[in-house]
Formats: sequence, structure tokens, C-alpha cells
Amino acid sequence: MQNQFSLPQPPTLADFGAVSPALAHYTTDILLGELWNRPQLSKRGRSIVTLSVLIARHQLIELPTYLKLALDNGVTAAEISEIITHLAFYSGWANASGAVAAARDVFAQRGITASQLPPVKPVPLPLDEASEAARKKFVGDNFGAVAPGVAQFTTGLLFRELWLRPGLAPRERSLVTISALVATGQVAQLGSHLNRAMDNGLTQTEASEALTQLAFHAGWPNVFTALPVVKDVFDKRAAH
Amino acid sequence: MQNQFSLPQPPTLADFGAVSPALAHYTTDILLGELWNRPQLSKRGRSIVTLSVLIARHQLIELPTYLKLALDNGVTAAEISEIITHLAFYSGWANASGAVAAARDVFAQRGITASQLPPVKPVPLPLDEASEAARKKFVGDNFGAVAPGVAQFTTGLLFRELWLRPGLAPRERSLVTISALVATGQVAQLGSHLNRAMDNGLTQTEASEALTQLAFHAGWPNVFTALPVVKDVFDKRAAH
Amino acid sequence: MQNQFSLPQPPTLADFGAVSPALAHYTTDILLGELWNRPQLSKRGRSIVTLSVLIARHQLIELPTYLKLALDNGVTAAEISEIITHLAFYSGWANASGAVAAARDVFAQRGITASQLPPVKPVPLPLDEASEAARKKFVGDNFGAVAPGVAQFTTGLLFRELWLRPGLAPRERSLVTISALVATGQVAQLGSHLNRAMDNGLTQTEASEALTQLAFHAGWPNVFTALPVVKDVFDKRAAH
Repeated sequence: MQNQFSLPQPPTLADFGAVSPALAHYTTDILLGELWNRPQLSKRGRSIVTLSVLIARHQLIELPTYLKLALDNGVTAAEISEIITHLAFYSGWANASGAVAAARDVFAQRGITASQLPPVKPVPLPLDEASEAARKKFVGDNFGAVAPGVAQFTTGLLFRELWLRPGLAPRERSLVTISALVATGQVAQLGSHLNRAMDNGLTQTEASEALTQLAFHAGWPNVFTALPVVKDVFDKRAAH
Repeated sequence: MQNQFSLPQPPTLADFGAVSPALAHYTTDILLGELWNRPQLSKRGRSIVTLSVLIARHQLIELPTYLKLALDNGVTAAEISEIITHLAFYSGWANASGAVAAARDVFAQRGITASQLPPVKPVPLPLDEASEAARKKFVGDNFGAVAPGVAQFTTGLLFRELWLRPGLAPRERSLVTISALVATGQVAQLGSHLNRAMDNGLTQTEASEALTQLAFHAGWPNVFTALPVVKDVFDKRAAH
Repeated sequence: MQNQFSLPQPPTLADFGAVSPALAHYTTDILLGELWNRPQLSKRGRSIVTLSVLIARHQLIELPTYLKLALDNGVTAAEISEIITHLAFYSGWANASGAVAAARDVFAQRGITASQLPPVKPVPLPLDEASEAARKKFVGDNFGAVAPGVAQFTTGLLFRELWLRPGLAPRERSLVTISALVATGQVAQLGSHLNRAMDNGLTQTEASEALTQLAFHAGWPNVFTALPVVKDVFDKRAAH
């Protein structure tokens, strides 16, 4: 049976103009013309941030456009595959399902085949045993009795499997994670993941500029809610 | 005039494989193969949790699949009808509208007719007058002058009508509520509703396992943001 | 090439009845029959609140219906154009894109043409230099070094341009902003924007009743999470 899933076409620039000439102007001149060309974060990085927003917020209309742009900006199909898998765990299974629907069509259009995608069981990246032991102890001490199922899957599936998948470098995996957290207002989890991102090689300039990207794509208020947490992380790392 | 509403088909397992073989594996082997079979919460309970996530987050693509699974898992059409009505109030009217669009088709496919649905004005469950008086006084003292309209509808419509509808048992109604709260990051309202859920008969094991279900279907960060609140409720109830 | 975008039809009242006779009753008798007719906030104001919820939460199915209702309630096409542009910045670009898709069709049906829409570069409203200087200093002192890109666009693009666009009065622009904040649970930004709204002429009665409208359209929990912030703003303004 033919799969009948189809995503609606995104509105064109002419559609934007027919509703808001100002928004069409801001889209071409500021968003695409200025923001995406700022040097503090690569276009590849901006694509990773923006895809993470759209997937984590289930905003499917613009997703095909930004998937194609991501491929053009040097995000590989294998990395997109891993981003979607990562966000199944970090934003909920149905968000990944929506992203699969969009990516399937884009991959088909671009001639991307299974051989270009990461395998189910790759050779994992090496585990930082000390850091993972500390994380596991913290979660176990605090929540092991409250939510044993969560604690078990967090260790076995997330930190000993998902985060060690080599198809997406830890720095990029972290960028996906913090982008999704800011985009969905989950600042309580942002501090630890921003520290992890910077431990994984994301510079302060890049993290700061990711917030600029997020302001436009996830809305100003989410970024302002994140700023005190980001400032605190930057300050504490500078003090060491 | 024929109603032309149609929801897009959800991506198939083959679609998942064409984008992420790993995600297809996690879906079949871990999500469906392991998580949904854990004994700490019934499949019926897991269906109630998952439907609540999808409705409260307006994730319509997977909703028909999980509506059918819910019926297969022993959630009745009458209960689904009540879940959608409950989430109109607890997650916003347009979320209920999206769920109606999905459920209408599923009900038609399964031959479910109006006679199987709860009436508009059923004989209500008995009201716990003391508990409701305390709730009303707390809200009135704190917010009665700030938001008289909210206070009025909360009493008359929610606690003296919606929560007393017998088509969904209070325990299940509470499970819907806490699932929606966790799935949308609204932890400020979680403590009182988790206490209410446990007063209504949800066991600590079930509440804990609902979090495992929510980790997969609403994303790990929402669950970790909820965990301190859940731990606090469990601790305080254990101390009494 | 013809644009093939099409939004699904919203479920009819008959669809509501086929899934939940109770929800159909609440929709006609309470939501539309009672809530929307309460005198504390005009129907025009209620339309602005409700559109803001639907756009900021990307709930596209009901959007055409409520866009038409907004036009009927005296919200002009120019104002709708500005609301969508405003929420691009205050809720993320893809939400505006979804709203464009819906509004384009409604505008076409109603014969609304480009001449009725605000220009790209209108004569701006006068800037309150003292208030803006204080805001800029606060953000600069706290976050200027942490997120220079965000600080720069916030000043140049938001407060010296977007907020000064005359197509939507500051009072209405504020109502859009606080509605979107409550509807997406972003209470950390609510206090300053509610104060701004009341400085811009929104009365306490109207702000309070906006919460009643939001309870139904964005869900009770979001309103209860907002209430302590709202109470604090009302109390502090009364004490001055």
C-alpha cells in the first residue's frame, strides 16, 4: 500500500507578502540576509540549531525547507538521522515521528539511501567512566527510588548508548540538546547540558550566538528565560 | 457539505528505517517491545498516559494509531470521549478540537456510535465537600480578587462538574491531568495534582512508572524537570 | 507553480458531537455562549487573545475559523498582519509561517488586498527614550556580555522598530505578548510585559478577564501558573 502521508507546502515568500509585507522583509533582509550570515556561528551550526527547534516543537510545515538547507550547509544525512533519533529521547517520540515524515521525502529527493545512514549498532565512542559514574550516582541518589525505570533507561539507553553513537559528534549532540531545551522552555535542564556542551567543545562565542539564532527561530521570550542560566554557567566556568 | 478534514498518515516502520535504522530499532525493540510491556503500569494505563501527551501537545500525526491502540488496550470509547473533554479544559480548547478530528475517524472505523458515549448531563459522582471547600477557599483567598472569572469557572465548571463526570474514574482523570502537566512542562501545578491522583487511588509504583512512559513519549527533560516535585510528594506522603 | 499548501478543515460541531456530546455542549453553551459574551473584555479583545494563543502554539486547524471571527469582531486585516509579525519575534519564526498560511487564504476569501496591509517601513510611533534607556541598560548590564547578538537585535529590531510600528497599538501589542507568554508557560517574562501592558492602557479588569479567556483557550494550568505573577503585578501597582 502506498503511504499517503504528505506534509503541506510551506508558504512562499509571496504568501508572506500577501499577509505581512513587513514580515517578508524581515525574513529576507534580517533573518536570512543578516542573522544566518553572522560569523559567530557557522551556517552548519545554525542549521543544527534550527532543525532542533522545528523538530522539538513539532513545527512540520517549515521542516522540509530547513532539512534541505541543512544538507546544503554541510549537515550530512547521517547527522540528520542521528539528530532525529536523539530528539526522540530528548523531546518525545512523536516529534521524531513527525521529523521522519519530513526527512523521508527530502532524503528521497536528494537520492540519499540506507547505505549513507548510521547503523543500528555502531562501534560506540569511548565512555568517560568517571564523569558517567558521577552522573549516575547523582541521579541514583536523588531519584533512583522515586523513578527506578527512568534511572535505569537513562543510564543504559541514554548515556551508555545514545550519547556514544559516533554518527553525531558529542559537540553537535550537545548543541541539539541545548537548542531543544531553550526552544521548549526547559531551563531546569539547561545548566548541566550547557556545561556538557562546552566540555564537548562548544565555545562560549558559539553558545552565545546559538541564543541569537534561537531568538528568531524559537522566540525572544524563550531566550530571555534561558539567559540567567547561561550567564551563570559562563560565570562559573570563567571563575575556574 | 462533506467535511474534508483529513489527518496525514503516520510514517510507517519502513519510513523510520529510511531515515534512521536506529530509531526504527528503538521503536520496535525498546519502546514497543520493552517499555509498553513493563508490569509496573498496565497497557491500559500506558495508553491513557500516551494519549494525554499527544492531545496536550497537539501531536496529531500519531494520534489515530494510539487511539486505536488505546481501544485495543481496554480504554473505552466513553473514556476517550471524557479524556478529550477533560483536556479541553486542562490543555486548551484547540487541542481537544484536534483530538476530535482524529477520534471521529477512529470511532467511525470501529463502529462506535453516540449511544456508547457519555451523556451531556450524567448523574455526577458525589462531591467531597470538605476537600472542595478547602480548595475553593485557597484559590479564593489567593486569586479571587485577581481573577474572579477564573475562580468562578474553576469552581462551578471544573470541580463541581467536570471532575464529577462518571465516564472517567477520578484515578484515570488524575492520570490524564498529571501526564498532560509533565508533557507540557507545567511543574508548578504538578504537586497538587499528583497528590490528588494518589488520593484517587494511583499507587506510587504506577505514578513512578508513568514517568518512565512519559520519558519516551514526552521526552527525558520534561521528566527530569518533574522529578524533584514527584520526589517531594512521595517523601511528604511517606512521612505521614 | 501553484502553491499546494492547504490546511485541514476544522472539525464541525457534528464531529464534536460524534466524539463528545459533552464537549459539543461546553463549546456552544459555555465557550461561545457564555465566555465570549462576558462584558469584562470586548469580543475584539478576546479575538486578539485567542489568535495569539493559536499562533504561538502552532494550532493551525482552528486558526482560519478564529481569523474570520477576529475580522468579524473588528480586528482589522492590518492588525492581524501586525499580530503575526509580532509573534514571529515573540514566539518563533515558524509559528508566524504557519499563521501566514492560514491568513493568506482567509484574506483572499475576504477580498483583502496589499493596500490594506501595513507598509514595510511606516512612520514609527514616538519612542519613550527614558523607559527604553532603562530597559537597554538593564539588559546590557545583565546580559550584554553573555549574549551580545541578542542584546543588539533586542534594542535595534524589537524596541526601536517592532514595538514602534503603528499598525497595532501598544496596548494591543502588549495583549498579544502577554497572551502568548501565558499560553506557552513563559511566566518568567510575564511580569515585565504585564506591567508594560498596563502602562500601555490595558486595565486590570481587562487583564484579569484575559486570563479567563486564556483558561479556556490555553488550558487552566497555564493560567494558574501565571496567577501568582499577575497578583504580584496588580498588588505592586496598587501600592504605588
